[in-house]
Amino acid sequence: MSTPRQRYREQVRREIKQAALARIGEGEPLSLTAVARRLGMTGPALYKYFASRDELLAELVRDGLGELAAAVRAAAAPQGGPRERLHTLARAFYDWAVAHPGLFLLVSSAPTPAGAEEVLRPFLPVFAQGRPARAVDGLPGWAHVPGGDPAAALTGAVLVWTRLQGVLSVELRGPFAGIGAALLAAEIDALADTMGL
Amino acid sequence: MSTPRQRYREQVRREIKQAALARIGEGEPLSLTAVARRLGMTGPALYKYFASRDELLAELVRDGLGELAAAVRAAAAPQGGPRERLHTLARAFYDWAVAHPGLFLLVSSAPTPAGAEEVLRPFLPVFAQGRPARAVDGLPGWAHVPGGDPAAALTGAVLVWTRLQGVLSVELRGPFAGIGAALLAAEIDALADTMGL
Repeated sequence: MSTPRQRYREQVRREIKQAALARIGEGEPLSLTAVARRLGMTGPALYKYFASRDELLAELVRDGLGELAAAVRAAAAPQGGPRERLHTLARAFYDWAVAHPGLFLLVSSAPTPAGAEEVLRPFLPVFAQGRPARAVDGLPGWAHVPGGDPAAALTGAVLVWTRLQGVLSVELRGPFAGIGAALLAAEIDALADTMGL
Repeated sequence: MSTPRQRYREQVRREIKQAALARIGEGEPLSLTAVARRLGMTGPALYKYFASRDELLAELVRDGLGELAAAVRAAAAPQGGPRERLHTLARAFYDWAVAHPGLFLLVSSAPTPAGAEEVLRPFLPVFAQGRPARAVDGLPGWAHVPGGDPAAALTGAVLVWTRLQGVLSVELRGPFAGIGAALLAAEIDALADTMGL
């Protein structure tokens, strides 16, 4: 059972993270001073809750990866053909990213494979049923790849991550913004072909 | 014939742009004050050369798109099969981006299609020989699409832009950095399949 003081501390930390996300969502660089100002706090007061900008960023990334993984997991269905399941999973990833563009960029930049692995796990049993047209050299080896063909599962996971990064880069900024949903459908269809699904 | 004063002005503007690119390359937000400090200038002195951060950014984007377009154009060869030509063009784009990661991000974010069109132009005659497996809805219409199938050329151009964004997002940051070259080969091979090349 937490004390009132602990609950208050958690509440303030949540508010700081929300203010930081709002700033990132506006395309602004993350500065603790600016976050503090937005909350009517002083910089030194904020440092009682997060020791550094890096600590705040790491926590945002962890939260974001957890949310994205949950969104993808919620779209996993054991029934349906692999092609249809792939589209549904990819669309859940895409929709989450479009709804949280700043957080998506943060999450995509995080260098630890463990978070990406959690996000991609629901794709593995789908791709494990495939027969990729060609291998990709130098893929990272993950600990847990399910039944079927583990190499196909891993190849598919890295390729779907790459395609989603591409489609979302195009949708969220740059000269072709606005055609993301159509691009996603085409790119995932093409990936299903490549993966022999 | 330019005057010494004009030549001096151009020289200082180039130095300002180089310092701004160095800052962007370090992943720092672009601040005119920080750029001025790096050059041993005061902020107000710098404003004599660029009226605003936006003006400096716009000029960096224009320069960057010009450089990227030149790198891709230099890799265009009329001989060779379309598949081989596609790989060569895509690799030239990729190599330029890996060599200029900060500028690549800036250039990819620019919302004007004209710059992207210039970069993608050498791809058009290659894709115009293809027969895409499926269409992508909602593609932007460009003015100048060469012979062959203009719809195929346009589809291929937008898809190769998307794939390059994806592979470069993966290579330049995040959990799978370092496998970009192998990913590029696989993704461009798969695109050649999809485009019927």
